[in-house]
Amino acid sequence: MRNNKKNGCRVLGIAASSTELGHGTFIRGLETTATYDASTKQFVLHSPTLTAYKWWPGGLGQTANYCIVVAQLYTKGQCHGIHSFIIQVRDEETHMPLPGIKIGEIGAKLGLNAVNNGFLGFDNFRIPRTNMLMKHAQVLEDGTYVKSRHSKLNYGAMVFVRVVIVFDMVNYLSKAVTIATRFSAVRRQCQLKAGETECQILDYVTQQHKLFVSIAAAHAFRITANNLWLTFNEVNEQLSEGNLQRLPELHALACCLKAVTTADTAACVERCRLACGGHGYMMSSSLPLTYGLVTAACTYEGENTVLLLQTARFLVKTYQQLDSKALTPTVAYFKSAAAEKFCDSWTNTTEGIIRGFQVVAMRKIAHCVIVMTNRVSKGMTFEDAWNMTSVQLVAAAEAHCRVIIMSTFLEEVKEMSRTISPQLKEVLHQLVELYCIYWALEKLSDLLLYTPISQKEVESLRLWYEETLTKLRPNAVGLVDAFDLRDEMLQSTLGSYDGRVYERLMEEAMKSPLNAEPVNHTFHKYLKPFMQGKL
Amino acid sequence: MRNNKKNGCRVLGIAASSTELGHGTFIRGLETTATYDASTKQFVLHSPTLTAYKWWPGGLGQTANYCIVVAQLYTKGQCHGIHSFIIQVRDEETHMPLPGIKIGEIGAKLGLNAVNNGFLGFDNFRIPRTNMLMKHAQVLEDGTYVKSRHSKLNYGAMVFVRVVIVFDMVNYLSKAVTIATRFSAVRRQCQLKAGETECQILDYVTQQHKLFVSIAAAHAFRITANNLWLTFNEVNEQLSEGNLQRLPELHALACCLKAVTTADTAACVERCRLACGGHGYMMSSSLPLTYGLVTAACTYEGENTVLLLQTARFLVKTYQQLDSKALTPTVAYFKSAAAEKFCDSWTNTTEGIIRGFQVVAMRKIAHCVIVMTNRVSKGMTFEDAWNMTSVQLVAAAEAHCRVIIMSTFLEEVKEMSRTISPQLKEVLHQLVELYCIYWALEKLSDLLLYTPISQKEVESLRLWYEETLTKLRPNAVGLVDAFDLRDEMLQSTLGSYDGRVYERLMEEAMKSPLNAEPVNHTFHKYLKPFMQGKL
Repeated sequence: MRNNKKNGCRVLGIAASSTELGHGTFIRGLETTATYDASTKQFVLHSPTLTAYKWWPGGLGQTANYCIVVAQLYTKGQCHGIHSFIIQVRDEETHMPLPGIKIGEIGAKLGLNAVNNGFLGFDNFRIPRTNMLMKHAQVLEDGTYVKSRHSKLNYGAMVFVRVVIVFDMVNYLSKAVTIATRFSAVRRQCQLKAGETECQILDYVTQQHKLFVSIAAAHAFRITANNLWLTFNEVNEQLSEGNLQRLPELHALACCLKAVTTADTAACVERCRLACGGHGYMMSSSLPLTYGLVTAACTYEGENTVLLLQTARFLVKTYQQLDSKALTPTVAYFKSAAAEKFCDSWTNTTEGIIRGFQVVAMRKIAHCVIVMTNRVSKGMTFEDAWNMTSVQLVAAAEAHCRVIIMSTFLEEVKEMSRTISPQLKEVLHQLVELYCIYWALEKLSDLLLYTPISQKEVESLRLWYEETLTKLRPNAVGLVDAFDLRDEMLQSTLGSYDGRVYERLMEEAMKSPLNAEPVNHTFHKYLKPFMQGKL
Repeated sequence: MRNNKKNGCRVLGIAASSTELGHGTFIRGLETTATYDASTKQFVLHSPTLTAYKWWPGGLGQTANYCIVVAQLYTKGQCHGIHSFIIQVRDEETHMPLPGIKIGEIGAKLGLNAVNNGFLGFDNFRIPRTNMLMKHAQVLEDGTYVKSRHSKLNYGAMVFVRVVIVFDMVNYLSKAVTIATRFSAVRRQCQLKAGETECQILDYVTQQHKLFVSIAAAHAFRITANNLWLTFNEVNEQLSEGNLQRLPELHALACCLKAVTTADTAACVERCRLACGGHGYMMSSSLPLTYGLVTAACTYEGENTVLLLQTARFLVKTYQQLDSKALTPTVAYFKSAAAEKFCDSWTNTTEGIIRGFQVVAMRKIAHCVIVMTNRVSKGMTFEDAWNMTSVQLVAAAEAHCRVIIMSTFLEEVKEMSRTISPQLKEVLHQLVELYCIYWALEKLSDLLLYTPISQKEVESLRLWYEETLTKLRPNAVGLVDAFDLRDEMLQSTLGSYDGRVYERLMEEAMKSPLNAEPVNHTFHKYLKPFMQGKL
């Protein structure tokens, strides 16, 4: 498998495959087996059922000739759970699938169609023992199984991928909101006052409401992702020293941040697209494609609901140990928020909103614990009580995540403010304000239930929101220009820097195959005979 | 233009075109001109700018040879606003665009790609005077303009189309939830309790939370659409007698129902798709295609935000005349909800929730009026005050629409209950309950602000919701089967009646062009030379 320059490379691509047709989330339930045969020092890979077929690996459909496969390891008649193996799937010369390998492409998808996602099945396919990835667990020549020292070590890789996804979301979101904001500055529709010229649609407060939160969210997510990245590196260093203490916290954090940022970005990108009206529906706007890429992230690398429930599990455990254990940094607020005086009056400030959300997150988790305890005391099993309460648990985990994003955003912008111009500081603070007020209004029922916010204060909050939109309006185009995405990256008829929206729409339309000739050949084949009553 | 059987037909299709590249919502701003030339008794159609090009008409790209065009009518040097003209755009024999006609297809879209949406421009193109559609307004031979008796008559057609859209939404929503529910009964993932066999994902309460509201919504929308249809026919009859009294109400009703049902359906369809995990991302699930069709309806025939603001305008007017004028049926609740005793205590019943929403809708409109009045009194123009308050106005119109849907759903199911079996009655009432509780929890902040609902009652509402999901679970598959959508209509690997999900996914995958041969020709063309260092 070694590549060298003289002979060219032999490995065209290595696809990584755990997901099967029948299993995604429940990785312990994978059906593919790798059974060790000590007599030949080989593993026998097998797909016992149709649902055992690997499904989804990118590049596996046609490109890759090697694949890392996760399978249930059997040796000496015993199953030791899932392990990874590297497997050659196609001939290096002819690219033909090897005997015992059933391989192909999975077909058309909502997006990502340039990725030849593949399927893979095994018919008692043999590989050398040494093709098992044995950095941690091992199978010796005689078939003896040697356990990994740390069963939780691969959490590190999962966290890493989720941090990368949060950064991806920042890119997609900046792209979508750049396109929609620039379009909204070019597009004019209706008169705000009778007789005036038509106004830029960016002047409509409903349009600002649709777009500006995405500008703020892009900054909030980037800053939070930077922080998560630093935390990941710290914890990873501790891991390499055998210290697993902060791993559960990091795992819980990465889970909810991946879930919330992908879901929010998907919603924001669609909102940007819809804010461009019919023209946003054109593929040439680049917005449908962007949505296709973003929405995939709500499912891959951990389905969002499943991830939020993982975070909830950590939060419930944290809450139950509130008095007995020191709290890790991201949940330290649980203790302060439990104090009666923490939020005994409401203030309409970003700090006040964040404090409110801290109380909300803590109280929502507390309430879930009460509900589950009640259910168990009435005879339900804990698992059923958890399931019955899971909609509320998901909401509690989301609330926690919003605390993290908002407080990180505010703190880091405050930190930056020491070194930037007063003008920049002002705009950045407006973005923090907008983001916090937006989410306060979105999650208002939680604040009304768990904080002392009054009806009057809610009304002021709404006015504050509307005024912040108005303040941001003059800088909106400047703010998206500041994302500094070149036209070549935007690839959008609506979003280019020069604002030639209508010219580009027409130019792109002219490239349609249906416009290659003035009369399409189908007229002569179908339409004319039909008109003549001959069809 | 007359068709007769002997000679075959001459009209291949008539595309209807008001939207231009630069104008959609603001139809009064259309740029295409139709100038009457009394010397030849012709209209001269012209597109003075690129943005004046017609853009979007279905079938216009390649199929239609005639088109109804909306243009600014000029006669005797005066503009009389927009009127409709029928225009031949292609030769009946050769299908070539006629001289003076610039026509083509607009290019790829998020969905609806089988519809050859077109563009159309005119270069001083002449048509006979009689090609103006003159049922209402007329241009006489000498160029004299005769006004239409009723300027509001074409509201009728707009309402009709919007009623049809609500029925469309029912079909798409039933389809999506049938697919997702059947898949969730087949798909098994994770163990609810350790050691048990993996459970159907339909047993997860989070999954029920994602799906069941769509079953309820499909019924709620169908019933509301039926009612809207009856109202439309009543009002239409009055219109033909010259009675325009109920037209504003009907218009306001159709606007908000179109906006809310399309937005809700789009959200529900995506939720169904995401609930199917990665397999929902496969085109063969039919869910991406369904979303593409539904989301288009949020924009066409009136952009949703614009429509909700139309409804809001009617509601503000209604509220301001509360004491002086008799209220039309759909807003009659404004008066009762304003009485102090109407909702002085909260009851956790469907009737209680609807009463709560009536108070909310009325109070939200009332609050908007106060905010706008304040703004005007501080020196803002009414138009600016309206714009500044528009986010709240949209929310108020939505609240009104939810009152209409929930109360119609409840009343009609009560009505039906007299003649159906007790078992069916029970399930239908569970659906009404689910729908009302779901929206009460979604819009909880409004209820907390404007009704006496307490924290304890909110907690009971949540328990009631979770219990209702559990009650519906055993009937979920039966309920989607009852939509009676044949496999041929579903066209889905995930949703067929026989539940052969995995077999169909593999069968569909095998049809992918990339699977036509074991090694794709691109290997020899690109990948092998690349491996050999020759690329």
